[in-house]
Amino acid sequence: MKSYRKELWFNTETRRQLINITPEVTKCIAESGIKEGLCLVNAMHITASVFINDDEHGLHQDYEAWLEKLAPEKPYSQYHHNSYEDNADAHLKRTIMGREVVVAVSNGKLDFGPWEQIFYGEFDGKRKKRALVKIIGE
Amino acid sequence: MKSYRKELWFNTETRRQLINITPEVTKCIAESGIKEGLCLVNAMHITASVFINDDEHGLHQDYEAWLEKLAPEKPYSQYHHNSYEDNADAHLKRTIMGREVVVAVSNGKLDFGPWEQIFYGEFDGKRKKRALVKIIGE
Amino acid sequence: MKSYRKELWFNTETRRQLINITPEVTKCIAESGIKEGLCLVNAMHITASVFINDDEHGLHQDYEAWLEKLAPEKPYSQYHHNSYEDNADAHLKRTIMGREVVVAVSNGKLDFGPWEQIFYGEFDGKRKKRALVKIIGE
Repeated sequence: MKSYRKELWFNTETRRQLINITPEVTKCIAESGIKEGLCLVNAMHITASVFINDDEHGLHQDYEAWLEKLAPEKPYSQYHHNSYEDNADAHLKRTIMGREVVVAVSNGKLDFGPWEQIFYGEFDGKRKKRALVKIIGE
Repeated sequence: MKSYRKELWFNTETRRQLINITPEVTKCIAESGIKEGLCLVNAMHITASVFINDDEHGLHQDYEAWLEKLAPEKPYSQYHHNSYEDNADAHLKRTIMGREVVVAVSNGKLDFGPWEQIFYGEFDGKRKKRALVKIIGE
Repeated sequence: MKSYRKELWFNTETRRQLINITPEVTKCIAESGIKEGLCLVNAMHITASVFINDDEHGLHQDYEAWLEKLAPEKPYSQYHHNSYEDNADAHLKRTIMGREVVVAVSNGKLDFGPWEQIFYGEFDGKRKKRALVKIIGE
């Protein structure tokens, strides 16, 4: 069994941002030399997400509005977590979007359907944060 | 290490439908010959879900009403994604329900608690779509 | 390839409770002898969750209030599932929080970012229930 590990680093200019990391994960799979296996990609922070969906600008606007409806950023005082912080909403938004994805590696490639793309979802950015890629297989 | 791959195909008659795929996944595990490992089951489309819950009709009605409350289908015009499409709600519903499950394989069987069942959740159906089963182990 | 399996048991005193199980999972990884691999931790019940977030009391109060807003426990009669049961809300709450996490094992340790902690989230407690830890790797 082979294993592979890499960290992907981000520093977004805005509090919230969705970044398509499919090219980076594709590179990791090539570097790993693994042909058949499983690839885990997870946020290493609890106010960020890794998820799979469509790379379509309108949908990303819908995500922003929808997450703000389900877990609004403001007023900060509505959350107990915000006595020393202001990012309780980011914890909740990441809960909706998910911490991680596990994807199949088949024939040395991401085993994806037609529109699947992997995103890093930042909900409390403007600082250095990272995601982990871990691949195991043969 | 062994690996196994199979696609499961669906073509639902309604826009939304929950299909119990536990028997198909059970067959995949038997076919794989894998006794100890991990089994990934994921939707290959971004408007569908694979999730684990109870096969109980009342609960499935509750899911339908609840998802319509959290991410209503109509009016279509409420979503930016719907300029050429009408399925933005399906992207959001699938986000709530999740893209994938990872289940343990132990002694050649799905390692499940008493009521766990695997479902394919279709949120934009009436066309051919599929899920992926990928198993690795020994 | 090595594999390891362990059940963690719980019996909460209240209907809902969040329990930090990071020490138990850390012990499992040590017991497994696996240095590089993937570790699945999942609820074996469909009204409970395993998720990763911060061990911060204010945030846990926020989760309680937020989940009650998104999927209220009462009135019980609002859910079809509650003809013989009263736990439909627990199925929905667990759907939001997720059934499982997959975490990387690197150098024989949980490969975690600075604040990641694993929780068992009970939403229909006061009885014996369990989570599964399954690790594969080398």
